[in-house]
Amino acid sequence: MSIDPRFDPIIDRRGTHCAKWDKMEPVYGVSPDDGLAMWVADMDFRPPQCVIDALQAQLDHGVFGYFGDDSAYLSAIQWWMRERHGWDVDPAAVFTTHGLVNGTAMCVDAFTQPGDGVVLFTPVYHAFARVITAAGREVVECRMENDNGRYQMDFAAYDAQMTGREKMVILCSPHNPGGRVWTRAELEGVAEFARKHDLILVSDEIHHDLLMPGAKHIPMALIDGIEDRLVMMTATTKTFNIAGSHSGNVIIHDPKLRATFAGRMAAMGLSPNSFGLFMATAAYSPEGADWVDGLCQYLDGNRQIFDAGINAIPGLKSMPLEATYLSWVDFSGTGMDKAEFTGRVEKTARIAVNHGPTFGTGGEDFLRFNIATPRARIEEAVARMADAFKDLQ
Amino acid sequence: MSIDPRFDPIIDRRGTHCAKWDKMEPVYGVSPDDGLAMWVADMDFRPPQCVIDALQAQLDHGVFGYFGDDSAYLSAIQWWMRERHGWDVDPAAVFTTHGLVNGTAMCVDAFTQPGDGVVLFTPVYHAFARVITAAGREVVECRMENDNGRYQMDFAAYDAQMTGREKMVILCSPHNPGGRVWTRAELEGVAEFARKHDLILVSDEIHHDLLMPGAKHIPMALIDGIEDRLVMMTATTKTFNIAGSHSGNVIIHDPKLRATFAGRMAAMGLSPNSFGLFMATAAYSPEGADWVDGLCQYLDGNRQIFDAGINAIPGLKSMPLEATYLSWVDFSGTGMDKAEFTGRVEKTARIAVNHGPTFGTGGEDFLRFNIATPRARIEEAVARMADAFKDLQ
Repeated sequence: MSIDPRFDPIIDRRGTHCAKWDKMEPVYGVSPDDGLAMWVADMDFRPPQCVIDALQAQLDHGVFGYFGDDSAYLSAIQWWMRERHGWDVDPAAVFTTHGLVNGTAMCVDAFTQPGDGVVLFTPVYHAFARVITAAGREVVECRMENDNGRYQMDFAAYDAQMTGREKMVILCSPHNPGGRVWTRAELEGVAEFARKHDLILVSDEIHHDLLMPGAKHIPMALIDGIEDRLVMMTATTKTFNIAGSHSGNVIIHDPKLRATFAGRMAAMGLSPNSFGLFMATAAYSPEGADWVDGLCQYLDGNRQIFDAGINAIPGLKSMPLEATYLSWVDFSGTGMDKAEFTGRVEKTARIAVNHGPTFGTGGEDFLRFNIATPRARIEEAVARMADAFKDLQ
Repeated sequence: MSIDPRFDPIIDRRGTHCAKWDKMEPVYGVSPDDGLAMWVADMDFRPPQCVIDALQAQLDHGVFGYFGDDSAYLSAIQWWMRERHGWDVDPAAVFTTHGLVNGTAMCVDAFTQPGDGVVLFTPVYHAFARVITAAGREVVECRMENDNGRYQMDFAAYDAQMTGREKMVILCSPHNPGGRVWTRAELEGVAEFARKHDLILVSDEIHHDLLMPGAKHIPMALIDGIEDRLVMMTATTKTFNIAGSHSGNVIIHDPKLRATFAGRMAAMGLSPNSFGLFMATAAYSPEGADWVDGLCQYLDGNRQIFDAGINAIPGLKSMPLEATYLSWVDFSGTGMDKAEFTGRVEKTARIAVNHGPTFGTGGEDFLRFNIATPRARIEEAVARMADAFKDLQ
């Protein structure tokens, strides 16, 4: 097998103030020296050279004052969304927040009141519930069906759950942690649900570029009849592995919603850091696009090896990924309780993973494995897992 | 005169997405090709080499994921505050916001309600009023006396102004735009005023390192009897000219206030970008301290040339700076209206400056000149000003 110089080299991230490797021991008791970090959702890869070059140019200039003139940045966003997603973005609709956890929080703050309900289709990205709760709003969990390893929504059940206090629904599209790319019919179902219950629809599409072969992501903005209640969220940080820049985009085409959001941005004194803007402008380019294509191929290779290894263990099931680099593994077939299967993964296999219950109802029997790491580590993880559960063979 | 390689070289910032030079033409109609940018409060200097080196190391590593382990960052803050300001900071008291405009906004959000009054001693940094108003709170202007070029507070007058709706006072210390370093007696006066009217006291000390020779800044945290209502704000961005990193610290020792603020940080989904943390950790060091000492000497040289030139023009008075690199020039002695003196500065002298009225009541007859630029430009500015007002000679 040929070596891909972009993704195969193992970069030692220990001692670099990196959350994924340097906080593994305090959080999990798994040593970074012989453990595998498969939790925090960033990748163990360098971004494309165009991003590195943009930073180097900034560094060579050497003056890091206030950023001005974001026209190139906005054009790059427009280009990317049109080219990669068939979506026309009005630059005036773009708000740059301090990453998309902050973006989500700003949506909750701008469009709901304390005590209001915010609907989540669970299990789902844990930070949503965290900011909703911290803001004094109520998380309304609409549990998805696990239909033989494919999450499905049951709108008839959700309709019956609504009380009228719900004001917003947040969709994760593609879905973290289940890896679903929602079909047009499913997206239309979510839009119809939002309209029926008069909800603002926040569509977090941070994983929209990380697609497995054959998968086709549809931006919620392309669904008819939703624009007047729609907030889109996108970012370069997940796609290009530059989460440290803490930069994300909240994109709102409806003039009324946009004015409300703009008011809250001003009240919170938010404006973007220059590193995020320089990196994003460089990333949303033809060179960046080539790199993403290579990345998706590489992740697909990792996924195949990981899934084959996991699914060969009786009782374990890895949810088939249509997108993202986050493998969602179901341990319910083992008959083990959470402490037992988690202990085997963390203590025996020495792999740090995200625990299913933090993703909400439906996540109880799951662990989430981040497979965006050099292939050698995926092979090692699979071997360790086989060993940790060898009594099931 | 010897050349200081740190501050004398002219670095061309045009076309670098820099607000100060690249937005001068759209905002003022002053071309960056022959104009002088003396508005936006950043410096035309590179940061100390230790900051550049820290960024280069991050770039050479090349993975820009989520930041973890902020202990070195917190230790650096502790060291700096103890070493340079005689102030002991509890690391648990430090919140890192997205710069101090966001920090101010978070304080307003956390500690006041819509409709509450927030007291400012005007004229003062324009962003305070902007975020207060955007948040639906009321700006309460307590106008300072201009006592022969030295701003003074008149607490008896301010006491009479209070209505009971005021919940917070924001002090700018040292003072932007007046350049005052407040005395212990003045700080005690502010503290007493805050206690008397039951106000949260937010002390924005972002300029605390930029002191003219002989000036001694006293952190508000060293004033007795105020800790239970005190919020301190500090940053590396102004001191080291790294505003692009959008990183600031809100430091709260009182446990009750701290818990309230922590709740709002969680609700807003705020956590720091890694560039700001790497730069701050490197900057708050002995090497950073040496650089700041050199910077202050250089700024003092600029100040002397600028003040001599400005004060030689009949009717113009530059307020003597005890701190900051922001010269506050009084045009009232010219008898000209604002349009006339501003036009001469912008159109005749081709210098972009901040307009006094944006700083609130008391700023009407003033323009603010940023003198943190290579000396050759200060000399050029002074020559242009003399020419633009030569009919007054």
